[in-house]
Amino acid sequence: MTMYAFTRSQNLFERAARVVPNGIYGPMSPAFLVPGHYPYFFQRGAGSHVWDVDGNEYIDYMCSYGPIVLGHCHPKVEAAVAAQQQAGNCFNGPGSAFVELAERLVDLTPFADWALFAKNGSDVVTWSLLVAREHTSRPKIVMADGTYHGTDAWCTPLTAGTTPADRAEILTFKYDDLADLQRVVAAHHEQIAGIIVTPFRHEAFHDQEMPGTGFHQGVRELCDAHGIVFILDDVRAGFRLHLGGSLEGLGVRPDIASYCKAIANGYPLSASVGREFLRPAAERVFLAGTFFMSAVPMVAALATLEELAASGAIQHMWHVGTLLGRGLEDQARAHGLPINVTGPPAIPFMSFADDPDFERNRWFCAACAARGVYFHPHHNWFLSAAHTEEDIARTLDVTDAAFRSVKEKWG
Amino acid sequence: MTMYAFTRSQNLFERAARVVPNGIYGPMSPAFLVPGHYPYFFQRGAGSHVWDVDGNEYIDYMCSYGPIVLGHCHPKVEAAVAAQQQAGNCFNGPGSAFVELAERLVDLTPFADWALFAKNGSDVVTWSLLVAREHTSRPKIVMADGTYHGTDAWCTPLTAGTTPADRAEILTFKYDDLADLQRVVAAHHEQIAGIIVTPFRHEAFHDQEMPGTGFHQGVRELCDAHGIVFILDDVRAGFRLHLGGSLEGLGVRPDIASYCKAIANGYPLSASVGREFLRPAAERVFLAGTFFMSAVPMVAALATLEELAASGAIQHMWHVGTLLGRGLEDQARAHGLPINVTGPPAIPFMSFADDPDFERNRWFCAACAARGVYFHPHHNWFLSAAHTEEDIARTLDVTDAAFRSVKEKWG
Repeated sequence: MTMYAFTRSQNLFERAARVVPNGIYGPMSPAFLVPGHYPYFFQRGAGSHVWDVDGNEYIDYMCSYGPIVLGHCHPKVEAAVAAQQQAGNCFNGPGSAFVELAERLVDLTPFADWALFAKNGSDVVTWSLLVAREHTSRPKIVMADGTYHGTDAWCTPLTAGTTPADRAEILTFKYDDLADLQRVVAAHHEQIAGIIVTPFRHEAFHDQEMPGTGFHQGVRELCDAHGIVFILDDVRAGFRLHLGGSLEGLGVRPDIASYCKAIANGYPLSASVGREFLRPAAERVFLAGTFFMSAVPMVAALATLEELAASGAIQHMWHVGTLLGRGLEDQARAHGLPINVTGPPAIPFMSFADDPDFERNRWFCAACAARGVYFHPHHNWFLSAAHTEEDIARTLDVTDAAFRSVKEKWG
Repeated sequence: MTMYAFTRSQNLFERAARVVPNGIYGPMSPAFLVPGHYPYFFQRGAGSHVWDVDGNEYIDYMCSYGPIVLGHCHPKVEAAVAAQQQAGNCFNGPGSAFVELAERLVDLTPFADWALFAKNGSDVVTWSLLVAREHTSRPKIVMADGTYHGTDAWCTPLTAGTTPADRAEILTFKYDDLADLQRVVAAHHEQIAGIIVTPFRHEAFHDQEMPGTGFHQGVRELCDAHGIVFILDDVRAGFRLHLGGSLEGLGVRPDIASYCKAIANGYPLSASVGREFLRPAAERVFLAGTFFMSAVPMVAALATLEELAASGAIQHMWHVGTLLGRGLEDQARAHGLPINVTGPPAIPFMSFADDPDFERNRWFCAACAARGVYFHPHHNWFLSAAHTEEDIARTLDVTDAAFRSVKEKWG
């Protein structure tokens, strides 16, 4: 195997560091990756493969941190986009796709009676808190301690620049601990507008955690018992577990849910869907943004949702993700390296046991990147409908070498 | 003149009203327009013209609420977009355009040493408040009473769903009233992190107000005297008054400024630019969003900024906006109708005197819409580089008929 070099990525990063705080910010920052042994800048994608600015090709297991659910440059999505783009994108009002997409989401989502759109996951997640407050005339929101719901001040994981007032109305509980949640609700229920949860725990720098049987059902019952709004943050998981919302497979239905990432196969869009009883509050809480009605992401979403349903993409992602996870587990066992593969197969993560600072994982991911497989050492991964069994087989050739390298380095 | 019908817009709106709160939300809501006499849904744009879903053609004076600064589907922007889109848009990291665009903004903006990007104006405006707080270790932000800075909870004009904590650290003063600002600063300066202002007052449902000579200079001096960060919200005005920031023509330079709307001719992008002394704080305040690094809006912004500079677009918008404003004033005088044309010529607004509920203006805008000219009765308008003298002449034919209609209705 030829080992990759990252010269252009590094040169571009040096230029970026002069004119951008941190050079690259957020989870794509080299500080979150593998400095010096990883690509930072990309130039092309097709299906399950991406190419960095040095021309190196990768099998892509991040899918742009989630959006690329059908594969890069999916022909049906791109055809819809090209047709709309020729007519224009951003107008003085929405296009007809706005109505069709809202109707489609309401059709797809058993609990939803309405939908609306914005750009970021945070736009709709934070707005849903205000809708819950407006509906209940109560101020407090309960969230799981440490859950990532975005970088708005009420929840950003790095609190620089925030003030105590930003979290004055936030209560926390331990994820997947119903007794702890019951304790918080018992103490404050007359003040609690909403409880917000993710379908499973998928924070960076942690193994993923699937909640125990009955957790989400318990949240539902607490909400019903106390007139609290059940808010689902389905930004990261949405459209990779179930097309009707990520809790649908568990038979649990929230009152309001947020989508983003995978909804339009990489085009910028987020959505909130909710029940009829929240419509009056949703009509009173103001939401506006210059690009919220733009047509291109909406036709992309319509094409994406249609293809996801028609192609059995979710089952496919489950299948290839399972092949990947089992392959990694078998190889690690053969190398005598204890690992944890966590999360649902379409959104997996792998970590090494006894690797609290993720040093082994960074080494492993760097070894994979140098050989054409793009993983992330601290953040969960994503499969797409474009990943093939051949991709997985080629990937496992690379990971075998990477495990060997970890074994040689750390024993 | 054939009068337009809006049948398809109305039918689509009826469908939307079933599945979207308010049918259409934000300033594009029919509640903010002219119910029944106005197009709500659009299908195409080219240059200074747009077509609604009924096939009616308009000369467009809203430019999608600002973004379309070069005209719809500008060939140079679309060519850059098409080339990037073929390669992909949303990857695991930025493309080279990210670095080129940050370098370009730093070059264009005399006070800026760095830049970064997000999707909405609110993303960067609200983030800049946190940067000011992080830099100063002070909690409070001073804003002008009633100024629109977006729909985040600290500033949304409709407060449904917000809590007192959301504004616990916000102080207000009267825009363009330095004595009032001095009073607020004198009382709280040890607690004040930043003062945020817009280049001029451009709130909906108000005439626009150009600040008096010395206002922004006074803000600058107060900030310097008390170690307060001068935050410019240039989201709406940016790139229509000056390419180096909208206060550059006044010789005033803020410490940090936010751009959005016009930066990429309709592609979704916002940016923050700031001074070197704020870089450490900017590096500590976390900012992340799934689509923040997407390449298509960045190549669109590079093409837009290049064309704005090369074509003398700002002078052109000034020229055609002045022709429009003077034409409206002359016609209104001839009809014996007192009006106010306010704001800079590239971002004008027209209202009728003695029309506190904007009834005359809604009638006027409906009369124009029915004849192929798209104005807004409550929100400022926008010119683009694509508006021609012929557009203005055709527009003034229409407005003459619309003024006559107002005169007949109200005398």
